[in-house]
Amino acid sequence: MEYRFSSRMGRVPESFLEELFRVSGVPGVISFAGGLPGSAYIDVEGIREAAREVFAEEGRTALQYTTTDGYLPLREFIADRYRRRLGLPAAPEEIQIVNGSQQCLDLVGKIFLDPGDAVGMERPGYLGAIEAFSLYEPDFYSVPLEEDGPDLAAFESLIRGRAPKFFYGIPNSQNPSGRTYSEGKRRAVAEILEGTDTVFYEDDAFGELFFDGKPRPPVKRHLPEQTVISGSFSKIVAPGMRIGWIYAPAPVLRQFNVAKQAADLHSNFLCQVILHRYLSTHDLDAHVARVSAVYGEHCRLMCELLDDLMPQVTHTNPEGGMFMTAALPDGVSSMEVFREGVREGVAVLPGVPFYVGGGGEDTIRLNFSAAGEEEIVEGMHRLARVVRRLA
Amino acid sequence: MEYRFSSRMGRVPESFLEELFRVSGVPGVISFAGGLPGSAYIDVEGIREAAREVFAEEGRTALQYTTTDGYLPLREFIADRYRRRLGLPAAPEEIQIVNGSQQCLDLVGKIFLDPGDAVGMERPGYLGAIEAFSLYEPDFYSVPLEEDGPDLAAFESLIRGRAPKFFYGIPNSQNPSGRTYSEGKRRAVAEILEGTDTVFYEDDAFGELFFDGKPRPPVKRHLPEQTVISGSFSKIVAPGMRIGWIYAPAPVLRQFNVAKQAADLHSNFLCQVILHRYLSTHDLDAHVARVSAVYGEHCRLMCELLDDLMPQVTHTNPEGGMFMTAALPDGVSSMEVFREGVREGVAVLPGVPFYVGGGGEDTIRLNFSAAGEEEIVEGMHRLARVVRRLA
Repeated sequence: MEYRFSSRMGRVPESFLEELFRVSGVPGVISFAGGLPGSAYIDVEGIREAAREVFAEEGRTALQYTTTDGYLPLREFIADRYRRRLGLPAAPEEIQIVNGSQQCLDLVGKIFLDPGDAVGMERPGYLGAIEAFSLYEPDFYSVPLEEDGPDLAAFESLIRGRAPKFFYGIPNSQNPSGRTYSEGKRRAVAEILEGTDTVFYEDDAFGELFFDGKPRPPVKRHLPEQTVISGSFSKIVAPGMRIGWIYAPAPVLRQFNVAKQAADLHSNFLCQVILHRYLSTHDLDAHVARVSAVYGEHCRLMCELLDDLMPQVTHTNPEGGMFMTAALPDGVSSMEVFREGVREGVAVLPGVPFYVGGGGEDTIRLNFSAAGEEEIVEGMHRLARVVRRLA
Repeated sequence: MEYRFSSRMGRVPESFLEELFRVSGVPGVISFAGGLPGSAYIDVEGIREAAREVFAEEGRTALQYTTTDGYLPLREFIADRYRRRLGLPAAPEEIQIVNGSQQCLDLVGKIFLDPGDAVGMERPGYLGAIEAFSLYEPDFYSVPLEEDGPDLAAFESLIRGRAPKFFYGIPNSQNPSGRTYSEGKRRAVAEILEGTDTVFYEDDAFGELFFDGKPRPPVKRHLPEQTVISGSFSKIVAPGMRIGWIYAPAPVLRQFNVAKQAADLHSNFLCQVILHRYLSTHDLDAHVARVSAVYGEHCRLMCELLDDLMPQVTHTNPEGGMFMTAALPDGVSSMEVFREGVREGVAVLPGVPFYVGGGGEDTIRLNFSAAGEEEIVEGMHRLARVVRRLA
């Protein structure tokens, strides 16, 4: 028989992620290619305790079906944290639980995008977002991401000229570049959007992971009714639970809820209850501070090694998060560095999938959260050999 | 600002589910309206033990990211069970883990349906499927579901005349009707589909729950390359974990994997590992036999009470599963029974949302898995008062 797939399936860019996961698992390969938080910094003992308490006290409830919006006490925790950390007047009714922030990408795409609609993104932009949105067949328009945020002239011209349904950005320690919007650019972005019908989709997966421990005020503060924020516990507690959230204005949340219910009824309730128990019995601030400090050291080490061993490679200088990008010497292709790297025992991610409509051949993304310090040193030496050989 | 939602959001039928969950939670209301397995029959102690072992032995791994297809040992368990129970030559590579079988509905819709494509369904059909598919804007065509399966003349005319991308059916103890396809109808359905490009989407959420404990051979046996099966642990272990699966031919599974990765990367890994540990250390057959026997008694009790107390109401006679439908006396509306019922302290689900393009005003769906025997007796007396009052 002939399988007649939908036309949207022809729009998906070829994915590196599965190949990456395979490569990352090959024994002996040091991987800077994935996006895993450091396994050593998951508080297994704390989550285990929380699980023990949940099974003892409310296991039967946590194993049943629940409502689509998610566990209320967990949504209260999230709302409270927004109020306390970022001065946003969040209420639990404005928050819904999803399967990690990747699910927000899918559902926000679903509720906003018809084929041929314009979507704005940073250039480079997060590849998981490109994949998720692609399935709704929009036209992508990207705005160069400079050291301190989007190129404002290009941003304004896109918003005025194409009126995208939404602009998707990661103002804090962006994936892949590690760049952070300055306060001035946050205001400017909000001012340009104000009065238009373009939603700002503020992906805040990394806002808790600034090396200096200081939160940066979100764009939503300047543009509350027009901004949708997504967040995730994957990077600050544990990815295997797949728990993230959306924080959005009521009309958006109503549509989102319909789409979430049709997608999978609700996110796994057992983990929602265990996670909430963990958060209410452990000090998340202290945990996040520890993890951020470690990632900061990893990042500094990686930057130093890049500067020392590969002076012809330039790189971004992240203030937080888990990623940086590096620009390769003239004529060195990122796909070659990827393939040669694996042979040499080091995996990096080519920049290509982060560019809609082509680009990224001369950049790679480097992750500094998953590997330990010794691995970073050894891996950077391997990478330097690959770059020298190809240059 | 004006929020510019996608046109698909205008296609979603109004949902009863959230209202239902609210009603089901009102103290004193006996609910036959939901779709919950009996909480008393969730093996909390067994799952707790499994969780304890997982945290002790492999917590760190289970809390990390994993691959999109899902935990291999769990997929091996599922494949092995297909081979053993149903004689299907399933391999773990043909199976992927999802967030309950609801997510299969979304993702199968996503990979097959363009706006205006034809989709075939049973009449009445599962409302969660109608909701999920609606978001891909197909044209629905429904085939009357008779006591022993689809009306074959109507089925054949639909397949030949409209060439739907797929036909969605629940051959075992259908939701909402509780009806089961006869072996003859299974063969006939497969014969009509053979040689066409219409996929058979066989939702098997209830196949483990036959009261007589005997499995019925799936349609996939007659039509292996053309059938996609979905299954779920929600009804046989615990819904709060949100773990189901798809079992599909390789070309379908490749597209499905792309859509699943874009949707949420992977299903929650912690619960996959705990569930697998539970399944390998406990006797699922014995557990399922106990649960099915209880549901069988509930079903017989409900049928007897309907016959005794509401002789003017006719009903289906399920051989398994969790639901039956009842046809109301002439002139009694299911929406009135729903509203009056809640006032009387009993919740039922109107048939309306199970009918695409109108219908179901004179039928209700009754769930017999969630309530205990005493509640069934009391609830049926309340329902009888409501029906008498409205008739």
